[in-house]
Order: sequence, then structure tokens, then C-alpha cells
Amino acid sequence: MKHVVIVGGGFAGLNAAKDLGNRPDIRVTLIDRCNHHLFQPLLYQVAMAALSPAEIAVPIRHILARYRNITVLQDEVRDVDLASHRVMAQNSFLDYDYLILACGARHSYFGHEEWEEYAPGLKTIEQATEIRRRVLTAFEEAERTRDSEQLKKFLTFIVVGGGPTGVELAGAIGEMSRFTLARDFRNINPKLAHIILIEAGPRILPSFFEELAKVATRNLENLGVQIWTSSKVTQVDNNGVTIGRERVEAATILWAAGVQASELGRKLAVNSDLQGRIRVESCLNIKGHPEVFVAGDLAHFAHGGGDPLPGLAPVALQQGRWIARNILRENVGKKPLPFHYMDKGQLATIGRSKAIIQLGRFRCSGFLAWFIWLITHIYYLIGFKNRLFVTMQWAWSFFSFNRGARLIVNKEWRFYRPDTSVDI
Amino acid sequence: MKHVVIVGGGFAGLNAAKDLGNRPDIRVTLIDRCNHHLFQPLLYQVAMAALSPAEIAVPIRHILARYRNITVLQDEVRDVDLASHRVMAQNSFLDYDYLILACGARHSYFGHEEWEEYAPGLKTIEQATEIRRRVLTAFEEAERTRDSEQLKKFLTFIVVGGGPTGVELAGAIGEMSRFTLARDFRNINPKLAHIILIEAGPRILPSFFEELAKVATRNLENLGVQIWTSSKVTQVDNNGVTIGRERVEAATILWAAGVQASELGRKLAVNSDLQGRIRVESCLNIKGHPEVFVAGDLAHFAHGGGDPLPGLAPVALQQGRWIARNILRENVGKKPLPFHYMDKGQLATIGRSKAIIQLGRFRCSGFLAWFIWLITHIYYLIGFKNRLFVTMQWAWSFFSFNRGARLIVNKEWRFYRPDTSVDI
Repeated sequence: MKHVVIVGGGFAGLNAAKDLGNRPDIRVTLIDRCNHHLFQPLLYQVAMAALSPAEIAVPIRHILARYRNITVLQDEVRDVDLASHRVMAQNSFLDYDYLILACGARHSYFGHEEWEEYAPGLKTIEQATEIRRRVLTAFEEAERTRDSEQLKKFLTFIVVGGGPTGVELAGAIGEMSRFTLARDFRNINPKLAHIILIEAGPRILPSFFEELAKVATRNLENLGVQIWTSSKVTQVDNNGVTIGRERVEAATILWAAGVQASELGRKLAVNSDLQGRIRVESCLNIKGHPEVFVAGDLAHFAHGGGDPLPGLAPVALQQGRWIARNILRENVGKKPLPFHYMDKGQLATIGRSKAIIQLGRFRCSGFLAWFIWLITHIYYLIGFKNRLFVTMQWAWSFFSFNRGARLIVNKEWRFYRPDTSVDI
Repeated sequence: MKHVVIVGGGFAGLNAAKDLGNRPDIRVTLIDRCNHHLFQPLLYQVAMAALSPAEIAVPIRHILARYRNITVLQDEVRDVDLASHRVMAQNSFLDYDYLILACGARHSYFGHEEWEEYAPGLKTIEQATEIRRRVLTAFEEAERTRDSEQLKKFLTFIVVGGGPTGVELAGAIGEMSRFTLARDFRNINPKLAHIILIEAGPRILPSFFEELAKVATRNLENLGVQIWTSSKVTQVDNNGVTIGRERVEAATILWAAGVQASELGRKLAVNSDLQGRIRVESCLNIKGHPEVFVAGDLAHFAHGGGDPLPGLAPVALQQGRWIARNILRENVGKKPLPFHYMDKGQLATIGRSKAIIQLGRFRCSGFLAWFIWLITHIYYLIGFKNRLFVTMQWAWSFFSFNRGARLIVNKEWRFYRPDTSVDI
């Protein structure tokens, strides 16, 4: 009985596990520090109060419950001993015959980790609700203040990074301030919110055709978003950002500027790239270790010797499934096959009812693109129930211009705190 | 133009505001430290992963947006100066002509506030997700451990307090362990979870007929809940509870044993009872202050000179509306009317498809009672969308035995914490 250990329950790990489920002579342990698989492409909608966390996150052990040969553990992997085939986690260790590393990426501040406090990134449910709390609280504070300087600061929202996540966040703030919140306040006009998307490069959405990026730029501007390209943020603090000599005061700063692979890449002392991704061989294994595979955002797979594949859900999903297939092949004495990526294209949405899509030479924008975006995302959501509920939330939001999850949730749950006065 | 200040956006405050909405010569400011109105009767379902927070919590300013004479402020009231008619909040102050105090109650540890850390109560969204985190994490830890003492501790769940909240929490843990989680684990059998409901008095549900309490006891026992009556908890710590000489080790302890009114009751130096509720006159005003009203859990209204009205949603709702009516009467020169409560009865659910109801001499239990409970709760939920979504969640849970929000969400959102090592 071969033991396959999978680290990470994202698109790669989960799909590898499913394809190994209920197969003979194989047992699988999937280990993740979260109890849930997260449908990351829709995480910005949680941050922007359109969806509830539970609508895009499902317990991993529930998804895999019907595969009796799979065990799911909630634990945090600290290190891997490649020589002795052992995974060390915080509370346990596991010996493997095959190992699949699929623990993804996190956001990067390019050496300024202290900026995180002031400019959260968007990779986890916790970060999404923190961003939601900050954005909604800024409007509440603006409503309360009588100081015009403060008012301006509370109504300024900065998004750093002009990739798809930054574009989606900025577009959603624009939509929220123009449509959702417009009628709910008395002292302020949420439509006057000042939203700035800051990009260090010469244009936003560099991975898309320039023509599509221009469409996205127009769409964003129509939602009140200002786009500052060729602008490098040099300082982030509690009160705003500095771009070279320019200073912008803002109460809310969101970070969508960079990612780096999970720390494991560096720890393993294998061949990794500047972003910490592990360079893999053609069968997605680590050089010299045919039993150790890497998939998803943690993997640097040079497609046809060129640029590495981007950190997209379809890449992770296909790599996870390919690895499962190769393990099953080896198990019956066949040779593993080199990975081949089938391009599924790229999508990004801008506010309600606008999107851009490119696939090979095909390109598409506007309402049709948004509709394709919508169908694809619902299709890939895990679980019939989530598909149904997300579809309904969207239909309701679309027709009512409302957002269903405008909750400000505090970080502290205790009432009787030793260090604070009792509040009424 | 008369200014009505309402402190608290619960059932009492919100309904008072609605009835004062868009009335001539009146402007209203509703102040609450949360941005949302919470449908508290279903909060235990958030704690037990059946509903998402946003399904039972709606932004107060959104509910009241169509009343142009109402301003909503998110702020925390610190004190009231009854003599000068001024409300002091953390970030602002407000002068009033009429004041409605409806800031509710919180749980009480009878002088042992340090127990809160180990045994959270259930009054806020934050506490509900904290309880959810603890209950789900206990099962995860049980799955991981290889120590039989630890295993027993992780699978023991203690609920302190045998009122409706305690009964609903214990029943829901029983149902979750028997049905929802049963298939998802490999090393443990969640059905063996040990659930203990501890009540200091001689029986559970003292506000219900003894006959109905007996039915509830049987229903709970069928879900695997042990009921310990006449048992007073004398110590609560990180590892369990002590009841006189007996010690029970448990990883999860929930507190549903006592409430006390918001601190404001004591601060005002008016006539308040032992639980801190303000004793009100027949028109729900404070003695000597016909312009200051108290409603809901903060009010001690001796119904016909007897026991004070219980802290139930219908009481708060009716009192809020009655106060609005009296303010409107005074505004046109009429005398205020003494409050009269129309009894809406009491309900409690036990797991799926069982409940008890009493209304005057009418009593009902089993599936019919549960169905009435269901209809009533959906009817009183605010917003068509929430009614639709909660109905669907319940329908889905009922037929699939599943729970839609089994998320373990951490308290910390930052990745780059100054005081911890970087995790992979």
C-alpha cells in the first residue's frame, strides 16, 4: 500500500486527492493548516461584502469524505526531510512514498513586511474579512467625522498593484460606493469616494493584451477609479502611502502588488526561482526525486522552456490531476508522462457586468465577457449548494444593486477583557 | 423639530426607529456600536455552523435607508447626562428631546468574568464565530491526537446553563456530531462525542411547563446529550469545569448561564434591579424623566406588578413600537399610554425537527412545534433576501444532514507577524 502525502488543499492538492480517491493499493493523507478549501478567484467578493465566506469555502474533509482511502489532517507543515521521506508538521509527522507539495503562495511586500499591518493582502478568508472591515469602517468613520481633512482621508481608498486582483478590488470599491452605499448615508456622499489604483509598471493588467487593458482602464474610470501607472510605492504607513515625492493620505490601503511562493520552497534547499517557486522537471517532480512532486503556485514549470506558467487556478488544477495520473501509472509499472498544459485563458472582472477575457488569440470584453466569467466561476465552484447560493446572491445583487454581507466584524470576541474598561 | 436619540439597534431600537421614520417634525438618530442589526434568536445557528453571519445580520443603515429623517451612527455610548439631555459617545455627543435606551444585555459570569476566556457566551457575531471555531477545532484536534486522555477531552463538550440558549446549543452539537460529521473523520467517531448540559436549578427550561421541559430532556438525550441538573459550576479553566467536588475535563465549554443588563443601567444612577435592568414606569419611561424611555433587555417592566417581562424578542419589539407611538402622541399634544404586553409565547428547538412551544395554556412539541418555530423565525427575519436564503439553507441542511458554514476562521489575519516565525 503506497502512502501519498499531499501538502495543501487548494486547487492542485484537492484535485490530486480526488483522482487518487478510492484507488486500489493507495492511501492518501492530505494536510492543510486550514480546515477549508478556498475558491480563491472569488475571494475579492468576500472582501467586498458581496459573498459570505462559507459560500466560497468548504471543509476539505467534507469534500473528500466519500473517498475512504483519504485521511484529512488539519496541521501546519514545518519541513520535509527528502532523504528519509518524512513530512514534519507542527503536531505530527508523516512518512510518504509519494509527496505532492501544493502549498501555494502568499503576498509579498518586497522586503517591507512591516507594511502588511497597514495594507492587507488578499489570500485568506481572514484577510478578506479584515479588508471588508476596513473598507466598511472607513465609510462609517467618514459619516461621523466633522473634520474635512479627516473626511477626505476616510474616503480615499488606495489599491496597490494593477494585476487582476487589484483591478477587481478597485472596481468593486467603485461599484460599492456608487451604487450600494449611495442612499444609506446622511452626512457623506459615498459616490465622492476617491479610489486610486497604483501600478509600478507602465500599464495595468500586463498579462493581458494592451487593447483589453485599455478597455479595463475605461471601465474602471467610469466607476470613479483613478489609475496611476509607472508609480512605485516607496512608503506605506497608518495614514497613507508615499510614491516617490508624492504623498497621499488614505485610511484604507489594500495590497495586491506581489506574491511569493510558500516558504517551503526555500527550506527544501532545492532549485528555486526568485519568487521562491520550486523549479520542477517535465513530470512536475523535483530533480533527483521522482517521488516528490510540486504543483500550483509553488511550482516553477517552464512551459516549453519559456516563461513559467502563471499562478492561475487552471494551472494548479491540471498539475494536480496530472501528478495523480503519473502516480497511478507508476503504481502499475508504467512510466510517468511529461506535463502538458492546456491553456484555459485569463479573465478579469471590472465592477458589475463588465469583464475582459483572452484565450490564445481570442479576446472579448463587456457584458458577454462578464457572462462567460460568471458561468465559468459558477461551474468551477465546489458543491452544488455553493453554486446555487452564489448564483442567487449574484442575481439578487445584480437586480437590487445591493451586497449581502456588509458586516463589520471585530477581531475581539471577549467582552470582559482584562486590559480595557467595560463598555456599555 | 424634535430630536429622538435611540441607543441600540436591536429589536426594540430598530422597531422604534421604523415607527418614527418619515414622520413630520421628528428627526431620529440611532446609535449602535455595531453596524448591523442582529437576529439574535438564530445566533446559535451561526455558532453551530448552520448559517453564515450575514444571513442573520443586516446593516442598520441599510434597513433604515428609506426613512430620510433617520441618521444612523456607528459609535459607542459611554454615558448619558439626564439633566442636560445629552448622550456622550466615544467619538461624538448628541443632544436629545427624547431618548430611547435599548442597548440590551450581555452574558454574566456572576462575578467570575475571568471564565469568559474559557467559556464564551453567545451574544454577538464575534462570539458565535469564536464558538464555531472552538467546536470544529476540537473535532480536528481529536482526529489528530493519539493520546486517549486528550482524545476524551477534545470530544467532551460542556454547555453551562439549561435555558433555551443552552438547550439549543447542546442539541445542535448533538445533531452535528451524530449526523453532519459522522462520515467525515477517519480516526475518530464523532458520534461518541460527550455532550453535557449543566444546570444549577432542579430542571432545565424553568420558564416552560415542566411537561414540555421533560419532552425537551428526552429529545436531548436522544441526541446524546447528558443533562446534569442541580449542578453548580464552581470553577472554569482551560481544561474543564469543576462542579463542587467533581471535575470534568473538556476542551470546549460554552456559557449560557446568565445575563445582565448593559452597564448603562448602573451608570445612570437610576432605580435598577439586581441584573442591572432599569425599573421603568407604566409608559416605559424612567421615573421623573418622561422624555427618557427604556426598552428590551435593559428594561425591568413589572407586568401587572408581578415578575418583570422576560428578555424575549417580542417584548423588545412591542416595547420599541409602543415608545414610538407615545412619542408621536405627545408630539400632537396627546397623553402617553401605559404599555400593555401581548403575550407571544415561548419557543425552543432541540436539534433538527423537534421543538417545544407554549403560549398561555396552549402547549405543543415535536415536529409540529418545530414547523411553527421555523415559520415564525423566517417571518420575523428582516429582509426578503435573508428569509429566502435562510429558508434555502435550512431546506438544504434538512435533506442533506449537512451544515453550510463549517469554517474554522482564525483570529489573526496577518501573515508577517513581528513576534512569530514565518509559517509555511
